[in-house]
Amino acid sequence: MRVLGIDPGSRFTGFGVVEEQGSARVRHLAHGVLALGESGPIEARLRLLHEGLMRELSEHRPDVVAIEDVFHARNARSALVLGQARGVALLAAAQAGATVRSFSPSVIKQAVTGTGRAEKEQVGRMVAVLLGITVKGRFDASDALAAAICGLLRARDPAASLAGPRRRGDWRAALARRYAR
Amino acid sequence: MRVLGIDPGSRFTGFGVVEEQGSARVRHLAHGVLALGESGPIEARLRLLHEGLMRELSEHRPDVVAIEDVFHARNARSALVLGQARGVALLAAAQAGATVRSFSPSVIKQAVTGTGRAEKEQVGRMVAVLLGITVKGRFDASDALAAAICGLLRARDPAASLAGPRRRGDWRAALARRYAR
Repeated sequence: MRVLGIDPGSRFTGFGVVEEQGSARVRHLAHGVLALGESGPIEARLRLLHEGLMRELSEHRPDVVAIEDVFHARNARSALVLGQARGVALLAAAQAGATVRSFSPSVIKQAVTGTGRAEKEQVGRMVAVLLGITVKGRFDASDALAAAICGLLRARDPAASLAGPRRRGDWRAALARRYAR
Repeated sequence: MRVLGIDPGSRFTGFGVVEEQGSARVRHLAHGVLALGESGPIEARLRLLHEGLMRELSEHRPDVVAIEDVFHARNARSALVLGQARGVALLAAAQAGATVRSFSPSVIKQAVTGTGRAEKEQVGRMVAVLLGITVKGRFDASDALAAAICGLLRARDPAASLAGPRRRGDWRAALARRYAR
């Protein structure tokens, strides 16, 4: 099972790829941020986004694309702009033949940190610890990796989170145990 | 100058194509509604939307794609859903090499009916009269044709509308006069 997580945005879109290794480990394959430009016509940026995602999807061939769902936004305008990037990401996933799974921000945070109200910094730290990597670049990449980890966890168990293991303080072993079940 | 107008939606997306004939007439080339399904995964519907638009763009090869911009929505959720369809439409336009022009709903209504607060019925009637056609299907098609007509008018004159001619009661002649200038 391989999952590509996407944190879509009209200026920066994060992506991250993880997979199960055997049945007991999660492995980091790649992550990065597509920089689409700070200005310029939105349609040109969406085209860059589509090209970049198709490149990653073609390279990593994920079974699942995990993407944050959005129910709240500062205003309708920002929801529309975000929606445009999200639509292109969903399209790319469908064109690549991946199964799309959407998760609310709180479900993703809950899955990775044990609390649905974690800050981006905490999500970033937990992603780094869970995968044993240093996440390069902006939070877009760690948010995308968090979505990917959530997608992997939830593929096995719809209610899965690391809330339990968190209390025991051993994340990687806990993740391994969860996958081993 | 050929303009393809799009009225994007996640269930139904209208399109309409118009062009200048000589410098004095606007001609209707095509219109229709892409039915994307009432339910089913959004990514599958976005894929249908992309395929349908690419087919029309490839057939009609417009210079300009005119599309309604949205600044207000019922809520963030509906803005996000609309944004997803709009993003795919913008992507298709960019991939087809067309210039994208965005217009607010009130600018489109103003251009076609003379008032920015026209109802959909009025827009539909005016589009039919202006183009000398019967618009088939839902308002999505007439809204898309209205966007296309707006794009054609505004390509010549950024402040153009049919507000003036409307008062004189002769729409087609007025449109012809405007293009003839």
